[in-house]
Amino acid sequence: MDNFSFYAPTYFAFGKDAETQTGELVKRFGGSKVLIHYGGGSVIKSGLMGRVKASLEQAGIAYVELGGVKPNPRSGLVYEGIELCRKEKVDFILAVGGGSTIDSSKAIAAGTVYDGDFWDFYEGKPVTEALPIGTVLTIAAAGSEGSPDSVITKEDGMIKRGASGEAYRAKFSILNPALTQTLSPYQTACGITDIIAHLYERYLTNTQNVETTDRMIEALMKAMIHEGSKVIENPDDYDARANIMWAGMMAHNNSCGVGRSQDWTSHNVEHELSALYDCAHGAGLAVAMPAVFTYTLHHDLTRFVKAAVRVWGCEMDYECPEKTAKAGIEALRSFLISIGMPKNFEELGAREEDIEKLAHTCCYGSEAANGTISGFTTLDQKDVEAIYRLML
Amino acid sequence: MDNFSFYAPTYFAFGKDAETQTGELVKRFGGSKVLIHYGGGSVIKSGLMGRVKASLEQAGIAYVELGGVKPNPRSGLVYEGIELCRKEKVDFILAVGGGSTIDSSKAIAAGTVYDGDFWDFYEGKPVTEALPIGTVLTIAAAGSEGSPDSVITKEDGMIKRGASGEAYRAKFSILNPALTQTLSPYQTACGITDIIAHLYERYLTNTQNVETTDRMIEALMKAMIHEGSKVIENPDDYDARANIMWAGMMAHNNSCGVGRSQDWTSHNVEHELSALYDCAHGAGLAVAMPAVFTYTLHHDLTRFVKAAVRVWGCEMDYECPEKTAKAGIEALRSFLISIGMPKNFEELGAREEDIEKLAHTCCYGSEAANGTISGFTTLDQKDVEAIYRLML
Repeated sequence: MDNFSFYAPTYFAFGKDAETQTGELVKRFGGSKVLIHYGGGSVIKSGLMGRVKASLEQAGIAYVELGGVKPNPRSGLVYEGIELCRKEKVDFILAVGGGSTIDSSKAIAAGTVYDGDFWDFYEGKPVTEALPIGTVLTIAAAGSEGSPDSVITKEDGMIKRGASGEAYRAKFSILNPALTQTLSPYQTACGITDIIAHLYERYLTNTQNVETTDRMIEALMKAMIHEGSKVIENPDDYDARANIMWAGMMAHNNSCGVGRSQDWTSHNVEHELSALYDCAHGAGLAVAMPAVFTYTLHHDLTRFVKAAVRVWGCEMDYECPEKTAKAGIEALRSFLISIGMPKNFEELGAREEDIEKLAHTCCYGSEAANGTISGFTTLDQKDVEAIYRLML
Repeated sequence: MDNFSFYAPTYFAFGKDAETQTGELVKRFGGSKVLIHYGGGSVIKSGLMGRVKASLEQAGIAYVELGGVKPNPRSGLVYEGIELCRKEKVDFILAVGGGSTIDSSKAIAAGTVYDGDFWDFYEGKPVTEALPIGTVLTIAAAGSEGSPDSVITKEDGMIKRGASGEAYRAKFSILNPALTQTLSPYQTACGITDIIAHLYERYLTNTQNVETTDRMIEALMKAMIHEGSKVIENPDDYDARANIMWAGMMAHNNSCGVGRSQDWTSHNVEHELSALYDCAHGAGLAVAMPAVFTYTLHHDLTRFVKAAVRVWGCEMDYECPEKTAKAGIEALRSFLISIGMPKNFEELGAREEDIEKLAHTCCYGSEAANGTISGFTTLDQKDVEAIYRLML
């Protein structure tokens, strides 16, 4: 196991009506004037925003608002948020929404207290300072409520990049599974796929002898498969949504990813898809994962065999372990299709003629990029093109 | 799933030579004058204390020392520590040792800033304030390095009781698996048993539909069985010790215990044994667990069947699930014996003639006690006597 540090000081208020604690939690963590950052009108229509504001008012917390966050959140709104926070002397950012809203909030939180362009953080500069952040989560998916990560898309060139740093851990996150009951089956399934991807990205490691985190990842995957099927069948199943919500946080707060190298190839390959076609991140991952895994299978066959047997319950083929490994990938693909995810480029709205461009941006798109993407294995543009072709 | 809050803001520095970060971490978390609290001479002989002091000195941190913590740490030393901290104006407690040293440090940390008798906290008063605490862990066992818990034995009557509160979470914990390589096989096995017990205490729940935490607990148990066997065979296996150390923290920081009722009957039953006979806590648990589980089996047979099949790999007996459940308990017993743990009262040094007294103290010992112990099921003195008899 590799050396590591782990620090996840987020307070979680979990359960029914947890959003009534918002005001008290902002106060506890030092906020006096809040930016409420959100997406579309659904949080208003559902009544959630009213309850959040009432809670803030009851605690004597002032607030300003900025809505309009879109899936694959954009840099333009981040700049707008930074300006508003500086003008209004905001000292706390409250994200009310899903991963996109939280990621946009994190970028605003860092940008407000930084002299330069916030995009620097998305080109590799570590995030060491930011306004305190709180979240009221409305979809179990990105894990951003408990992670030190944020992903933003720069409109100029539609480049999607991530940033990370301890200052990006929320001070508190409010997780009320009932809030996710109004999501469409498609949104719910996208969330489930994203969570499973966060687990695979950590499972595919080159570090040996990491049984504890291996087992934790397998456990969370099995819980996602079991509870994911239940919630697609019955969207009102509160307990299934609660299990998914906690698993989504645990999958990405990195307690199951410490001390081991990680992959993130599927995310890198997917980011180009959602940046160019504006598809849902989870939907892109559903198409990307089986292709990436098929392409990298022989880098460490045993690891895919282990996932197949332990997670997917495949029968071990002792004469031909490769068959078992492939059966595991097929089981993943079937599961994703069963919950309503797309299976190829066409269903995703992607185009074969863009493949060279997608692969080029993936390998050379950011200033830090050097022509390859690395993780479980190192891939160049030709490899990434081949992976996209497997998605046709 | 039940509503809950979860807050685990401990910074973990994990890996080889991690103790060299001690001074810098004390500084980061606001300490300027430290009490170094420790047990016997082993941390001095091993050279660990020298490295810790060098790190403190390098960071310009002053310190005083108090050694002498014994397994099943006593109230007498806590009072001594409180007096010393007040006299020396200590503002940070650094525990260098195992669970006993950390638990004693927590009691001192709370007692120093409290006007009354620190024992109040061990009679049920919530711990809301304490000096900041850091730990340098030398044995994977109690999980106190990441938990909000502490257990102390009051010399007057040899009463062993626990206290809990957010202020009991360490600011930082240094986990260097190499430090555990000098432990005897018996101490190592006691630690493994304690960790497994922390998992069973959470697994035995009356809350329905908690698949995510069920799976997490099962995962950590399987890792402990696998890595526990490896480390007993080869005490120098760094990776096995690293896997156990992280599992030990995860088993007790409660991320796998949230949103569900828990048991703690085995711990309650054991505390009387280690209080009266001064046996190792882990050894007492090895004898207590199979007896408690056998006695409470029929409260929820399915839960024991699930543990048997999923954790211990027992074949499901569809015609007679009870046989499967019992096979799981036997598998646990065999595993504990295989790593060198005692199997009955005699091997533990306990006496049949004390059973009535043990059961009485267990059910009536503390001021808060009302004649029963509760968790997975509610047991009165007669039940507890019957459990002790199963250990003969």
